[in-house]
Amino acid sequence: MDAEKTQEIITGFIKRKVSEANASGVVIGLSGGIDSAVTAKLCANALGNDCVLALIMPTGVTSENDVSDAVNYAKELEIDCRIINISKILDSFLNEIKGDKKNKTAYGNIMARNRLCVIYYLANSLNRLVAGTGNKSEILCGYFTKFGDGGCDILPIGDLYKTRVRELAEYLKIPDEIRKKVPSAGLWQGQSDEDELGISYELLDRILAEVVDKKTETSKAATKLNTGKDEVKRIGKKIGDSDHKRHTPEICRIKQ
Amino acid sequence: MDAEKTQEIITGFIKRKVSEANASGVVIGLSGGIDSAVTAKLCANALGNDCVLALIMPTGVTSENDVSDAVNYAKELEIDCRIINISKILDSFLNEIKGDKKNKTAYGNIMARNRLCVIYYLANSLNRLVAGTGNKSEILCGYFTKFGDGGCDILPIGDLYKTRVRELAEYLKIPDEIRKKVPSAGLWQGQSDEDELGISYELLDRILAEVVDKKTETSKAATKLNTGKDEVKRIGKKIGDSDHKRHTPEICRIKQ
Repeated sequence: MDAEKTQEIITGFIKRKVSEANASGVVIGLSGGIDSAVTAKLCANALGNDCVLALIMPTGVTSENDVSDAVNYAKELEIDCRIINISKILDSFLNEIKGDKKNKTAYGNIMARNRLCVIYYLANSLNRLVAGTGNKSEILCGYFTKFGDGGCDILPIGDLYKTRVRELAEYLKIPDEIRKKVPSAGLWQGQSDEDELGISYELLDRILAEVVDKKTETSKAATKLNTGKDEVKRIGKKIGDSDHKRHTPEICRIKQ
Repeated sequence: MDAEKTQEIITGFIKRKVSEANASGVVIGLSGGIDSAVTAKLCANALGNDCVLALIMPTGVTSENDVSDAVNYAKELEIDCRIINISKILDSFLNEIKGDKKNKTAYGNIMARNRLCVIYYLANSLNRLVAGTGNKSEILCGYFTKFGDGGCDILPIGDLYKTRVRELAEYLKIPDEIRKKVPSAGLWQGQSDEDELGISYELLDRILAEVVDKKTETSKAATKLNTGKDEVKRIGKKIGDSDHKRHTPEICRIKQ
C-alpha cells in the first residue's frame, strides 16, 4: 500500500464531502482504538483541527485505559473533545422498556445505537457530518451494529482492510498504545474482535481479498492461502448473512 | 390503483422477507396515523396476528388521541401491543449530553432515533424484523429521520405515494379516525406534514409522479399539472438534498 497516496485520497474525499454538504466539519466517536484514531487524524488533516469534534462515550464496561488513550490522543491532535458517559442513558432505557443486559447482542446494539443518537444530536446542532470509523474487514463481515456504529454520513477508511489501517496508522504515527491494542468493539468486558470473528485479521483480510476483490472460487482460495475450505466458506457465509447491513431497507416494489 | 393486487404483492413481500431472514415475525411502531395502521394490517394479513408486535412510543408532545387510536386499532387487529413512553429516556439523554429542546430538528430526530433503539431492542430480543412505515412521498422528499424512522429492515409501503396509501387504507377498512387524521410526524405539538412540506400531498404526489416516475422535465411538468415551475423546482431540490438519506454512507474508494 502507498500510505502517502492513500492519505491524500482520503483527506481529499473528506474535504469534498464536507464541502458538498455545506457542513462546518465532522463529529466522530473516539473509542481509544486504532480505527477511530486513524479516522480522526485524517479528518483533522483534511479539515483542520478546529473542524473535528471527538466524542468519547464510555459505559460501565469501558476500560479506563481506552478513555485516557482517547483523551490524550485528542489533546495531541488538538481537536475538541467531549466525554459523555452514556451509562445513565442506558439505565434509563432498560428501565423504561423493562429490558435487561442478558441478551449480549441486543444490549450491545443498544449501546452502539445510543452512541449514534449522541453523535447525531451534536452533528445536527453544529451542522456537521458524522464520520464513521468502520473498516473494510468489519463492513464485509457485518461486524458492526446496523443503525449504530454502522450509521454515519461518510466512511473515510471503509475501503481499507484492518491490516491496511494498521499500515496507515504507522505512517500517520498513531501512538503505540493505540496501535498495538487488542482490537475490540468494547461492548462488553474482555470482548475481542478476533475471538468473536473466530479468525485473525491477517488471515481474514487475505481471505476477503481473494473472495471479494479477486472473486476467487472457494477451493482455489483455500489452496492459495493454505487454509481450510470450510474456513473460506464460513467467511463467505458471514458476508452473505450480513448483506442486509450494507444496503438500505428493502422497499416492496409495486408494478402498476 | 388495483388495491387488491397491491395488497397481494405487499403481503407476499412481507412473508418472503421474514422467511428469508429466518425471523419469527415483525416489530412495528404504531403512531395512531394512517401509514403505520396500513403497514400493521398488511403485516398481520401476511404473517398472522401472533407474529406482529406493535410498539406505541409516546412522548410529552404526543396527543392522547393518537395513543388511544393506536391502542384501539391494535386491539381490533388482535396484535400484541406495548406502550413504552420514551419521555424519561429523552430527559435522561438531554441531561447527560447537556442538550436542550430548542433546536427542533435535532430534538425531533432524537425522538425518532430513540424509538429506533426501542424497536430494535425488542426485534433483536425476539428475533424479528423491523417493518418500517415510510411511504414513497416521504422517502423521496427525505421527510424522515436518517437512522430514526428511516431505519428498518423492510419497507412494505415504501413504493406507495401517500395518496395511494389512503386508497389502500380505504380498501383495508382502516377506521375513519385514523384515515382522516391530519398527517403529522408528531415530533412537536401542532406539527403538520403538509405545513412543513409546504404543499398538499395531492399536488406533491402528482409532481413526484411526473418528475421521478415519468422523468418529465420541470417546465413541462409545471404546465401539465397547472402549477408553478418554481414549485416543481422546489420539490426537485428536496429530492436532491435528501439523496444521502436514501443511500448507505459513502465509502471513500481507494484504487491501488
